[in-house]
Amino acid sequence: MKSFIHTDPQSHFPIQNLPYGVFRPIHGGSPRIGAAIGEYVLDLSVIDKAGKLSGTGAEGKGVFQQPSLNMFMSLGRGTWKRVRSQIQDLLKEEEPELRDNQTLREASLLHRRDVEMLLPAQIGDYTDFYASKEHASNVGTMFRGKENALMPNWTHIPIGYHGRSSSVVLSGTDVYRPQGQKKPPEQEVPVFGPSKRLDIELEMGWFIGPGNERGKPISIADAEDHIFGLVLVNDWSARDIQAWEYQPLGPFLSKSFATSISPWVVPFEALEPFRTDGPAQDPEPLPYLQQDGAGSFDIELEVYLKGKEMEKPQNIVSTNFKYLYWSMAQQISHHTVAGCNLRPGDLHASGTISGPEKQQRGSLLELTWAGKDPIQMSNGEERVWLEDEDEITMTGWCQGDGYRIGFGEVTGRILPSIDYSS
Amino acid sequence: MKSFIHTDPQSHFPIQNLPYGVFRPIHGGSPRIGAAIGEYVLDLSVIDKAGKLSGTGAEGKGVFQQPSLNMFMSLGRGTWKRVRSQIQDLLKEEEPELRDNQTLREASLLHRRDVEMLLPAQIGDYTDFYASKEHASNVGTMFRGKENALMPNWTHIPIGYHGRSSSVVLSGTDVYRPQGQKKPPEQEVPVFGPSKRLDIELEMGWFIGPGNERGKPISIADAEDHIFGLVLVNDWSARDIQAWEYQPLGPFLSKSFATSISPWVVPFEALEPFRTDGPAQDPEPLPYLQQDGAGSFDIELEVYLKGKEMEKPQNIVSTNFKYLYWSMAQQISHHTVAGCNLRPGDLHASGTISGPEKQQRGSLLELTWAGKDPIQMSNGEERVWLEDEDEITMTGWCQGDGYRIGFGEVTGRILPSIDYSS
Repeated sequence: MKSFIHTDPQSHFPIQNLPYGVFRPIHGGSPRIGAAIGEYVLDLSVIDKAGKLSGTGAEGKGVFQQPSLNMFMSLGRGTWKRVRSQIQDLLKEEEPELRDNQTLREASLLHRRDVEMLLPAQIGDYTDFYASKEHASNVGTMFRGKENALMPNWTHIPIGYHGRSSSVVLSGTDVYRPQGQKKPPEQEVPVFGPSKRLDIELEMGWFIGPGNERGKPISIADAEDHIFGLVLVNDWSARDIQAWEYQPLGPFLSKSFATSISPWVVPFEALEPFRTDGPAQDPEPLPYLQQDGAGSFDIELEVYLKGKEMEKPQNIVSTNFKYLYWSMAQQISHHTVAGCNLRPGDLHASGTISGPEKQQRGSLLELTWAGKDPIQMSNGEERVWLEDEDEITMTGWCQGDGYRIGFGEVTGRILPSIDYSS
Repeated sequence: MKSFIHTDPQSHFPIQNLPYGVFRPIHGGSPRIGAAIGEYVLDLSVIDKAGKLSGTGAEGKGVFQQPSLNMFMSLGRGTWKRVRSQIQDLLKEEEPELRDNQTLREASLLHRRDVEMLLPAQIGDYTDFYASKEHASNVGTMFRGKENALMPNWTHIPIGYHGRSSSVVLSGTDVYRPQGQKKPPEQEVPVFGPSKRLDIELEMGWFIGPGNERGKPISIADAEDHIFGLVLVNDWSARDIQAWEYQPLGPFLSKSFATSISPWVVPFEALEPFRTDGPAQDPEPLPYLQQDGAGSFDIELEVYLKGKEMEKPQNIVSTNFKYLYWSMAQQISHHTVAGCNLRPGDLHASGTISGPEKQQRGSLLELTWAGKDPIQMSNGEERVWLEDEDEITMTGWCQGDGYRIGFGEVTGRILPSIDYSS
């Protein structure tokens, strides 16, 4: 399948992808919804007004004139498929409807450099899971010792916790180094100050729609119908604050200062050709977590770090989504089994994605083994934790035959802590 | 101070209180904001339209025509005080402005039996703290043994965790018994089924406004200016699910199936006469947590349980807000110190409020010491955990000289688990 809009084979946004995002034209106008195609954005509010989405179930309701994808997310798989199919048809090389309509093309296609991206959804609740066995084992070994690395519940439960939705920010937003309480092992009492163990977490997130009523769990068979689409997530973490605060109620301030996500939400449908088995699960999960068929996806993931003194970003992680032990469907089904309701626009993230090899570890904590094994940078520096002015870029894609389903990137730069005492 | 609307000394809603809530007239009309006075609700959207809030900073913006208090919460202490003062003036016995205006009285005063109450805010994030030393010690002893009861961090940090906002429900909403994974000590592997250790948690919550920008902490000196008002909170908890899931990321499904709150938000200003010292804090907190003056409030709290076979509710807890070790200001200041942003409408809850005496323990877990010491009910039954059809009522008030600043009540009834496998 090809579009009349040229995309090269390395592009993240060919016609096979068509991710959704919320944007504002930089020359003025209100926030609205678009789909990325190559270097362009198709303004779906214009396409809808031109009557090109009729029969989808989303037409004529102002769904694409919204400042968030929440309303579209609420409409469900049938509508999402019809909208996607009609947009794909409109953009096809051989279809004259948009291609030869110069007025509509000019009104609906904006170059991506002429738009400002915004958060794709109003996130009601953000839940962060802990679904990588390698990550949980690595972190557990470092925090609690090898014999207590993986808690007894871990192979039975897709462990997750409630995250903070207010501090989910868009790619490109600067992150101030957090301050807080830490208790270095050599000290008797805690001290206050900037985090000295600032870290990244390479994760993927998925937006929920339509969700469920309180008290009515989503079965494992239905769970994937509630995945609207996926983004890249960098769950910034302050390890020194985390180590001191997390017992017994879990991470709190060590995570809630910022979580960065990529702007383009890749439709779940676009990932179907890349479906694959996740790791074998032993012991067998309880029946409510038993999923038929392959529940994972082959998504290449990379992290780059660029220090202030470095000329170009350096690759520090290369891993894959398929290493996750628990599938998205299992995580969703578990989340709702006791009656918790999910709402359109809720964000779930996978937890750090680590693989079996060292280069596949998705956090500095694991890559440097809490500082014992610094990363050698191309300019001769070493890295253990993030330094001020470091810029992190995460990216990911599914490699098709001559095309990529890409996620774009999520970036963020660390700024020094601000001294508010003065 | 007296109102021309009669309230008896036991009423929770005298003119000294004037809590805010969101209601819908049962005979029709959209959700709007009112203030409770005795058996009546003063419709503030009508009062605003009549020009009676001019000069407050809230007038003429549709603030009281909203389905939530969020916009009002965002306006800050100065506006809150002016609105409160003008409403109080309007309702005074000696003020003829509303008293003698029959048309306006008929349009603005509804009997409380003629309104349906709704959730007072759109809650962006819900944070639950763990601020009672007695509660943390009791629970810690039962979950981890006496020597690990209070974690080393507890006397340094107002421990809290991110809760679930989607499942915060209004008083009167039925709660289905949650199902989930549990691992009884005598079994090798977890089992799935309805919670058999369903519990209450007596808490108080406060709504946030205006909040802070990400990266800019709220100082302890400013923290109380971000407390709009308080409600009663029942943080339903499934102890068997909690015990199996909570390591290492904290409680998740054991809490997120439902959290009930009372409908009337008592203004922070109304509590000022009841300010009192909390417990002495030893060790001295770090400077960012050092609060000048008394940071607690003398609020009587009670819990009643009524089983299906019982003729009337039985008092099972009588305690006081003042036993909380960490103040609201300390909790707010801590929450933001690493840069987390709070938004208008966010809900913070205190965690279970327990006092030093047995009758002052705010959960069944503590009252029955995890089942070792059942509660004797008036009809000869015993209670260890909640049974189906049990109805819980929590209430609270500040006792003034001849009047009460009351919180009304938060109620909820347990319904049996639904079998979704059929």
